[in-house]
Amino acid sequence: MHILLARSFKQTFLDEMNALGYDVVVDTDSFDWHDVQVTIGWKKEWEAPLFSKDSQLKWVHSISAGVDTLPLSEFASRGILVSNASGIHSESISDHVVGVLYMYTRQLFAATLQQETHQWGLDDAVFKPLSELTVTIVGTGNIGTTLAHRLVPLGVTVFGINRSGHAKEPFHETFSLDQLHEVGRKSDIVINILPLTRQTTRLYDQAFFATLQKHAAFINVGRGESVDEQALSEALTTEQFAFASIDVATTEPLPPDHFLWSTKHLMITPHISGYTPHFETKFMEIFLPNLREFTASRTLVRNQVDLEQGY
Amino acid sequence: MHILLARSFKQTFLDEMNALGYDVVVDTDSFDWHDVQVTIGWKKEWEAPLFSKDSQLKWVHSISAGVDTLPLSEFASRGILVSNASGIHSESISDHVVGVLYMYTRQLFAATLQQETHQWGLDDAVFKPLSELTVTIVGTGNIGTTLAHRLVPLGVTVFGINRSGHAKEPFHETFSLDQLHEVGRKSDIVINILPLTRQTTRLYDQAFFATLQKHAAFINVGRGESVDEQALSEALTTEQFAFASIDVATTEPLPPDHFLWSTKHLMITPHISGYTPHFETKFMEIFLPNLREFTASRTLVRNQVDLEQGY
Repeated sequence: MHILLARSFKQTFLDEMNALGYDVVVDTDSFDWHDVQVTIGWKKEWEAPLFSKDSQLKWVHSISAGVDTLPLSEFASRGILVSNASGIHSESISDHVVGVLYMYTRQLFAATLQQETHQWGLDDAVFKPLSELTVTIVGTGNIGTTLAHRLVPLGVTVFGINRSGHAKEPFHETFSLDQLHEVGRKSDIVINILPLTRQTTRLYDQAFFATLQKHAAFINVGRGESVDEQALSEALTTEQFAFASIDVATTEPLPPDHFLWSTKHLMITPHISGYTPHFETKFMEIFLPNLREFTASRTLVRNQVDLEQGY
Repeated sequence: MHILLARSFKQTFLDEMNALGYDVVVDTDSFDWHDVQVTIGWKKEWEAPLFSKDSQLKWVHSISAGVDTLPLSEFASRGILVSNASGIHSESISDHVVGVLYMYTRQLFAATLQQETHQWGLDDAVFKPLSELTVTIVGTGNIGTTLAHRLVPLGVTVFGINRSGHAKEPFHETFSLDQLHEVGRKSDIVINILPLTRQTTRLYDQAFFATLQKHAAFINVGRGESVDEQALSEALTTEQFAFASIDVATTEPLPPDHFLWSTKHLMITPHISGYTPHFETKFMEIFLPNLREFTASRTLVRNQVDLEQGY
């Protein structure tokens, strides 16, 4: 049987798959689509051959943590298992967010922009120690928890938001997603890490941004579609709140003429928060144990996606 | 007797000085220079009246940690005590440096510059976890030690350099200033926090920058005069090493046509690393105990500057 790859991996990992009895192929190889049982990653053009009647596809392992771009209901109706790369990016996304927090509180974003104008000095700059901030992390899963573990020792007050509002270590307080606006009002910084689902699409809209305090900041390292980008741009332009940083956008790559590029007080990074130099090793620490279990029992041991919930 | 101020402070602090029997004046007030016994801060134009024969000046308390701009040998020959604001800026400078480290390792400086061009994506960007870095802090005093305490829990290997090379907590290893080039060779990042003295003037020259590895970075939050800025600019332009961030320059404010502004791979911030919202409170935690002791015994209890050493 075949494992079909959407990207390359080091030979040592391919050897481990071969040792379990699989032929590893990429879609430019010549192979029989009928023999594909497992894929790593997914491409739109694979739908025709792999959703055909004689397909033996049983399991799709996503390369990213988010699976919102995958045809989940098709997988569900065909009984295809889905797992994701959740957990791999926790450290790097946490580093990215902590970096952005320092850039905001220490005026390093403003200074970098100003450097381009060759002017020394920053007018009216306000410097805040992280230890005096209340930061709300929306999403208390892998990434949110890793980030909270970074912030608590820095003296930050860390609130968490999840669907039910259940308590979770090391968050000081947790709230349910229904309470987002109420929590927004008392936060200095709100960070979105939620996966994209129906419930989280356009969650951050005009009404949400209106709850933020004048000095507050918003950071999105979840999915672009969770934000009403027009409303974000307007709230920043009219200085309803002070600063936003987005690593994701509804349209990626963001086209050069997009209005977000010229929105004041907005920092844009090109979906880099998850980059880690150890991607393959960490990825295979999820995939290979799953492949062993799948080979033995057609079930998975880690990171299986609930196709109903979408994450 | 008068305490002469180079800047204003909150009334509550002035009240405490009054309660100890002093009249607080600023140099636009009308007062008798002969009655000035203490100054907070220093101005060039005070030298004529306060170094005159009938001056009763006994103590100068610097507003900054560095006293390199003060006429130290004049103070020494006149028996004038000098103290400084060392310690006040440790937390904020440490925050600034940690922010710069994340900006470098997570490519947030490169992304911010690129945002100006409206281009999504970063070519050849390398992302490094802080935990895999060896960072050398040159200067193991107040600020260096506070910074080291931030970096050790992040998994960073932290070397320290001081004059004698004496061990200091929490540095993993310490070296003497004579070993700077040897330590530069094995560091991923070198951070200068030294005060400006004869020994530290132009310490970072062409020969030093030549020791750095191709991927290395240099950060200066000490004094601009410790760096040969022409050599720094050339080393960055020719990519001898990868990145530098300076918060200080030989000429401040840096003139708009200065060559540093257009040096590639160089981040320039306008001497903001020490800014703290709690400056006055922290400052007075040093000055007021000193004033009480000075009033009682003409000696100081904290932060006295060794006029021979210059810090």
